[in-house]
Amino acid sequence: MSSGRFVGKGTSGDRRLAARGHCETIGGVNSELSDSAFVRACRRQPVSHAPVWYMRQAGRALPEYRALRAGKAMLDTCTDPEMITEITLQPVRRYGVDAAILFSDIVVPLRAVGVGVEIRPGVGPVIEKPVRGEADLAALRELHPEDVPYITSAVRLLTAELGGTPLIGFAGGPFTLACYLIEGGPSKNFDRTRALMYGEPRLWAGLLGRLADITIAFLKVQVAAGVSAIQLFDSWAGVLSPQDYQRSVLPFSSRVFRALADSGVPRIHFGVGTGELLGLLGEAGADVVGVDWRVPLDEAVHRVSPGKALQGNLDPAILLAPWPVIEERARQVLAAGRMAESHIFNLGHGVLPDTDPDMLTRLTELVHAVPAG
Amino acid sequence: MSSGRFVGKGTSGDRRLAARGHCETIGGVNSELSDSAFVRACRRQPVSHAPVWYMRQAGRALPEYRALRAGKAMLDTCTDPEMITEITLQPVRRYGVDAAILFSDIVVPLRAVGVGVEIRPGVGPVIEKPVRGEADLAALRELHPEDVPYITSAVRLLTAELGGTPLIGFAGGPFTLACYLIEGGPSKNFDRTRALMYGEPRLWAGLLGRLADITIAFLKVQVAAGVSAIQLFDSWAGVLSPQDYQRSVLPFSSRVFRALADSGVPRIHFGVGTGELLGLLGEAGADVVGVDWRVPLDEAVHRVSPGKALQGNLDPAILLAPWPVIEERARQVLAAGRMAESHIFNLGHGVLPDTDPDMLTRLTELVHAVPAG
Repeated sequence: MSSGRFVGKGTSGDRRLAARGHCETIGGVNSELSDSAFVRACRRQPVSHAPVWYMRQAGRALPEYRALRAGKAMLDTCTDPEMITEITLQPVRRYGVDAAILFSDIVVPLRAVGVGVEIRPGVGPVIEKPVRGEADLAALRELHPEDVPYITSAVRLLTAELGGTPLIGFAGGPFTLACYLIEGGPSKNFDRTRALMYGEPRLWAGLLGRLADITIAFLKVQVAAGVSAIQLFDSWAGVLSPQDYQRSVLPFSSRVFRALADSGVPRIHFGVGTGELLGLLGEAGADVVGVDWRVPLDEAVHRVSPGKALQGNLDPAILLAPWPVIEERARQVLAAGRMAESHIFNLGHGVLPDTDPDMLTRLTELVHAVPAG
Repeated sequence: MSSGRFVGKGTSGDRRLAARGHCETIGGVNSELSDSAFVRACRRQPVSHAPVWYMRQAGRALPEYRALRAGKAMLDTCTDPEMITEITLQPVRRYGVDAAILFSDIVVPLRAVGVGVEIRPGVGPVIEKPVRGEADLAALRELHPEDVPYITSAVRLLTAELGGTPLIGFAGGPFTLACYLIEGGPSKNFDRTRALMYGEPRLWAGLLGRLADITIAFLKVQVAAGVSAIQLFDSWAGVLSPQDYQRSVLPFSSRVFRALADSGVPRIHFGVGTGELLGLLGEAGADVVGVDWRVPLDEAVHRVSPGKALQGNLDPAILLAPWPVIEERARQVLAAGRMAESHIFNLGHGVLPDTDPDMLTRLTELVHAVPAG
C-alpha cells in the first residue's frame, strides 16, 4: 500500500497504488511498468483489456480536488510538489484508471522561464506581455532543469506512490504555447496567431523553435525523474489546415518527438478538432495518436499510418447523459477501437467540470470488463 | 444610381447600385438578378469570373459601420430597417462585391418570438432563461411575418437600392440556435448542448423541430420580400461527429431546405470546422456548400456529392498578413475552386474586426480579374 503520506478516499483504485519494488529498468520504463496494460498498449503489445485513463481526470469534477484547491491559485498549485502529487493521485484512487497523468498546466514551462503569466479562473491563461516582435522572442530564454525543481520532486514522489501504475508526463505543443503567447488571452480560433504565422514566417520559425526547445527540456526533466510515457498536447492545432500545419508546425513538433526518441518512453500526441491532421500528428513522431470525439476510431485508423496505437475518444459530453447512453456509446468506442492496431480508451477531450465522478468509476469498470481484441 | 437616401463613401462599388428596372421574375429571382454572376454560380451556370462576397462583410472592420453603430445596441440595430439597409449596403459600395447579405444576427428570430436575449459587446448572445426542460420548449412560440416587420421593410428597401446586385437572406441553423438557447451564454464546444442532445432525445427533437419552423418562417419572410438567395449558418455544427449530426441535426436542417425548395432561390449551407460534415451539409438540401478554411476546395470537391456549388474559403486571418501573402493564397483558393462544378469566392469564416478594408477591396479586384474556368 501507499506510504500513507497522501491520504485519499479508499476505493478500488487503491489496489493500483501498491508499493513499487526494486525493478530492472528496460527502455526507459522499469519491467513492472513495462508490463502494465497502458505501456503495453502504447507499444502495440497484446493486452487483456483496453487500458483507460481520462484527459483532465485530475481536476474540477472531483470534490476532493475542489476541496484541496480552495483558495489556491492554479499556478501556485502546479509548482507545489506535494499538491501536484496529491491531485495526480486522486483520480487513480477513485477511478482505478490504468495510468496517472502529471497534474500541470500548459503554461507552467513558460512561467518557469520567466514569462509573466497568470491563470484567471473562468478565463484561462493571461500573458502580461504578448509576443508581438523579435524583441519579445529574444526575451524568451531556455528552460533548465533547475527552473522546475517541483516537477522533478513531484514525479519522484508520484512514481514511489504509484507502484505499477504508469505516470504520463505532460507538455503543451509548440503551436499551442505560441497561441497563448501571441493571443495573450482567451481566443476562439487564435486568429492573431494564424496572422503572425502567415505574415511573419521568420519570427514564427524563431518562436516555434524556441518553444520546441523549452518543451523538450521540460519533458526531459519528467523523463529523467521517471515518467513512463509522455503526452504532447497540441490542443489548438486543429485550427490549421493540413498544409499550414505541415509547413509551419509539424517540423517543430517533430523536433520534440525526435529529442524524446532515445528516452524509450512511449510518446502520445493529441489535439482537439484534428480530424484533418490525424495522419500528420502521427508522422510528427508519436507512438500513439489521440483522437477527438468527432472522428470515429474505425475511421481514424484509415487516416493514421500503420505502426501507431490510437487513444480516445468518447465525447466527454456523453458523461452528462444517463448511464445507459454512456454504456452504449462506450461500447461503440471499444468496438471501433478494435479496428486499430492497439487502443487506449480515453475521452475525446478533457473531463467536463460538471461530470459525476461515479460515472467515470462505472465507465472504468466497464472498459476493464470488456475483453480486448 | 441609388435613390440617395442611403449615403456612403463613393467607390467602384457604387456602379453595382444602379436602379433596378422592371424585370420579369423567373424562379423566385428576377431576370437581371438571375443573370448576375452570383446567382449563376449558385446554379452552376458559366460565369466570366468567380463571384465574390465575404461573410461578415458588413461589420466591425468598416469605419463607416463603427460610426453608424456607435452607442447603439446590436439588437436595436438589427430591428431598424434603415440601419439594416445602410449597414448591408456599406460593403457593397466599398468593395464592389457580387452579393449583399442582409445584416442581421442569428438570435433575431428568437427575440422576435419573445425569447429574452441580449447581445453583450465582447461576449455575444446571452439568454435570460436558457432551455432546460419541456416547459421552456412549450414557451417557445411560432414566428409570424408580423413579428419581423423590420425584415420585410429592410429587404424591400435593399432590393430597390441594390439593383442588379443580389441580396442574400440570412438565418441560423436549428442546431446553432439550440446552442445559444441551451448554453445561455458563451461556450467553446457547446458541451451542455451535446449533453442534452445525448441525454434527452425527446426534448431535443421537440426543440430542434420548433427552431426549424421558426427558421423556415423567418427565411420565408425574406424570400417573400425579395432576397435572391438564402444562407443557413449552422455555425457550430462542426462540434458534432458525422453520426450525431446525421441523426440529431440533419433532419431538422433538411426540413428548412425542403420548405424553401419551392421558393426558387439558391440555398447556401455553411458551418465552421465542418470538414467531416461537408457531404452531409450538401445532403441536407443545399445548392451551395460553404467550406471553412481548414479543408482545401479541391479536397472538399471529393466530400460533397455532385450537383453542388462550393463557396469559400480563404482563411480570414490571411487578410491580416501583407498583400503578397494574401494574393498568393487567394490565387490558390481560386485555382482549387476550379476543381468544383462552380465556385463562389468567400472567406472560410467571417471578416475579422482588425481587417484593413483596403485589403478586401484589393482582394475583390483580384478575384474579378482572374478568369473563371
